[in-house]
Amino acid sequence: MTAERKMALALLVNGTGHHGASWLHPSTQADASTSIEWYRDTALLAERGLFDLFFIADTPAARTSNLEAYSRFPIFMNVFEPVTLLATLAGLTSHIGLGGTVSTSFTEPYNVARQFVSLDHLSHGRAAWNVVTSANDFAARNFGLDRLPPHAQRYERAQEYVDLVRKLWDSWEDDAFIFDRTSGLTFDPAKQHAVDHEGKFFTLHGALNIRRAPQGHPVIIQAGASDTGREFAAETAEIVFSSDASIESGLRFYRDLKGRMDKFGRDPDELKILAGKPVLIADSAQEAEDMFQTLQEMIHPMVGRMRLGMDLETDLSDLPLDEPIPEDRIPKTSNQHKAYFDHIVEMIRTDKLTLRQLYLRYERGNKTFRGTAMQVADNLEDWFAAGAADGFMMNFSIMPMGLERFVAEVVPEIQRRGLFRTAYTGRTLRENLGLKRPANRHVVPAPAPLEVAK
Amino acid sequence: MTAERKMALALLVNGTGHHGASWLHPSTQADASTSIEWYRDTALLAERGLFDLFFIADTPAARTSNLEAYSRFPIFMNVFEPVTLLATLAGLTSHIGLGGTVSTSFTEPYNVARQFVSLDHLSHGRAAWNVVTSANDFAARNFGLDRLPPHAQRYERAQEYVDLVRKLWDSWEDDAFIFDRTSGLTFDPAKQHAVDHEGKFFTLHGALNIRRAPQGHPVIIQAGASDTGREFAAETAEIVFSSDASIESGLRFYRDLKGRMDKFGRDPDELKILAGKPVLIADSAQEAEDMFQTLQEMIHPMVGRMRLGMDLETDLSDLPLDEPIPEDRIPKTSNQHKAYFDHIVEMIRTDKLTLRQLYLRYERGNKTFRGTAMQVADNLEDWFAAGAADGFMMNFSIMPMGLERFVAEVVPEIQRRGLFRTAYTGRTLRENLGLKRPANRHVVPAPAPLEVAK
Repeated sequence: MTAERKMALALLVNGTGHHGASWLHPSTQADASTSIEWYRDTALLAERGLFDLFFIADTPAARTSNLEAYSRFPIFMNVFEPVTLLATLAGLTSHIGLGGTVSTSFTEPYNVARQFVSLDHLSHGRAAWNVVTSANDFAARNFGLDRLPPHAQRYERAQEYVDLVRKLWDSWEDDAFIFDRTSGLTFDPAKQHAVDHEGKFFTLHGALNIRRAPQGHPVIIQAGASDTGREFAAETAEIVFSSDASIESGLRFYRDLKGRMDKFGRDPDELKILAGKPVLIADSAQEAEDMFQTLQEMIHPMVGRMRLGMDLETDLSDLPLDEPIPEDRIPKTSNQHKAYFDHIVEMIRTDKLTLRQLYLRYERGNKTFRGTAMQVADNLEDWFAAGAADGFMMNFSIMPMGLERFVAEVVPEIQRRGLFRTAYTGRTLRENLGLKRPANRHVVPAPAPLEVAK
Repeated sequence: MTAERKMALALLVNGTGHHGASWLHPSTQADASTSIEWYRDTALLAERGLFDLFFIADTPAARTSNLEAYSRFPIFMNVFEPVTLLATLAGLTSHIGLGGTVSTSFTEPYNVARQFVSLDHLSHGRAAWNVVTSANDFAARNFGLDRLPPHAQRYERAQEYVDLVRKLWDSWEDDAFIFDRTSGLTFDPAKQHAVDHEGKFFTLHGALNIRRAPQGHPVIIQAGASDTGREFAAETAEIVFSSDASIESGLRFYRDLKGRMDKFGRDPDELKILAGKPVLIADSAQEAEDMFQTLQEMIHPMVGRMRLGMDLETDLSDLPLDEPIPEDRIPKTSNQHKAYFDHIVEMIRTDKLTLRQLYLRYERGNKTFRGTAMQVADNLEDWFAAGAADGFMMNFSIMPMGLERFVAEVVPEIQRRGLFRTAYTGRTLRENLGLKRPANRHVVPAPAPLEVAK
């Protein structure tokens, strides 16, 4: 770790804020999730804060049951499709990276490979793709299936999918397009390398119909926590979002994941681990805590029960609120978000809480950090100095308020401490993150210059 | 036909211009096809010309054989993916409609339904989807197939696909999202209408995860010329691009297509037929003709032969340039672009040209109109007054030069003649085109007000 090492910052954005009741807070714009003006202003604010990445999560489905609860907790019910939203933002921003989730379970590799290269050109090198396998049956039913395929099969498909997409991203050499009016050639025919892929899930013979991406390959993001997910990330990911609650567990995850990279011939620096940081900033720790509790109390019991049941992968709607969940109602294994599932099971077994206490205490992923700007800066520094993260994926309970305070108060502080950049240094997302631009697999690297003996 | 009737104008854009040799012309930007700055400037210019629609054609494939010819005639070898390009332009323009091609053969209805509704919100009601079934085997091979499915099967799938997409577009009522902080509800649960579709090609149970489009439904475009294509258009299209060479054949097509609408319960005004108008404008007719011939002579024989073979759906590479194509080399039927195929066959049979003469005379679709701005205005007026079109899809041999002259010289002239708007009158593409906003199928129309006897 040198003095030069800077933290990376990503921003997870989903309308009114990370807290499920944020849309009820008077400072938020209740219909933000499909307002392009809101997203534009937020992206420009994040860009003023020198964030590396503006990130959009996604699932390709609206819920169609338990609608009153989902109306009160409108996650993914009314959102822009990520690639289109990011493409619009590409034209309205200049520096910030633009990342979004697209599932490998319900799309075609050619189309996704193409859309992300297109986005990379439209943004002049700022595109990033979060590879997910999708994790709910509502999505499956939008694509002709009754249920999600099993976890292992989804990952097997994802692996082949990403491999194929990367082949397509190399189907033209960087300097293939020459537009030479003298010879009359727009490209050098020898620099197209058509893909010839016959795999378990996909067969594809063709080349992408767009020149190679400014970044070589758009940046690949992942967030899998399972063993399969970690192996996949170690092999392919360039950004991983982690969701550990403590520095100790963050450090374990960090070391485990980076330790898996060597067997894939990868250097640990080729992957940036960004710890998820849900944050609520106020003038004092007590004020932040009070604001958080006020938000928690705005959660309708119907929502608390539903949200818990969703991540515990079972229906809790018949259970009394003020008694513990009976042991025999807890599923044996998870087929969706393993990390969320394990966290709830651990809370049930350890703390013996009632259903109501559980949902008031439960938050997806790790807990919201409540404190002052200075305390947030301390927390980020602690994680970063401990080597538990290369940076952070910030998400704010209330938006844009949380981001405004972060940009105005936390960013100058981490800059002052030498932990964060004071200006964008790169032209592309890769350059800002310090990630290498992938060479094209079809190009033999130029030999190193000979060392001439003096 | 009243004095109020105005023509609609669409612009077909594909980089340096419609002519295959346009990228060699010194006035063009050779790498325009993946320059967002070029597209932005062009869209803004079209918007200054009060065009209804900025339109991007597409095929999801690059050619992977005969590469030297395709390098000299770079159609679809290096282009933005249309939806991402249009989404970027949505943020950079204010009035012009944004239409693009997406194939029903190689995508999932849920994803496409979602991307176009997202684009409609991002552009505040300016999205249009050109429904195609794709027409080359290079595309098929990018999606696990050896060859395209037969024409009839592609259309059968397209029909079910569009039907399903429209159901998804009605999965929320217009006023479903209320964001009512008092009741704590973001939407009225009774106003979600999940789709329950089990068809021959698709099974889908779900609702779109974005509120209904500003236009109700994004505008549906089609260009099928076959009998199957015309039936499909009569049933579903709201814009049809036609490609007839003469007013007479244009009028036949117009009457035929609009005549087919009644059996689907549609009014002829619910469909706008825009005649394709390849145009080259110069100061005199002779100068325009000379410029055109100069461009034609820039076509490399390799390109001429390949282009002809592509649309004749056969390989002509072994045939001598200065002899006619032998009768036994002409395929019996077309499986791709029927209109192009028929046109070439007719030229071969009628005019007995050599291969070289054929390719120098052949142009895809109808012939480029060469003339002065005044002659272009006359031509548009003739077609419009004859009732052979509701408007035109302009495309210019050389871009942006052709568009610049059109906006500077033809637009003021057709405005002077009362044929074209002098300002955008609507807020959405539908409003500008005079197309009705589709009601949601799940909403019973309010009863007409009772007429009270005096």
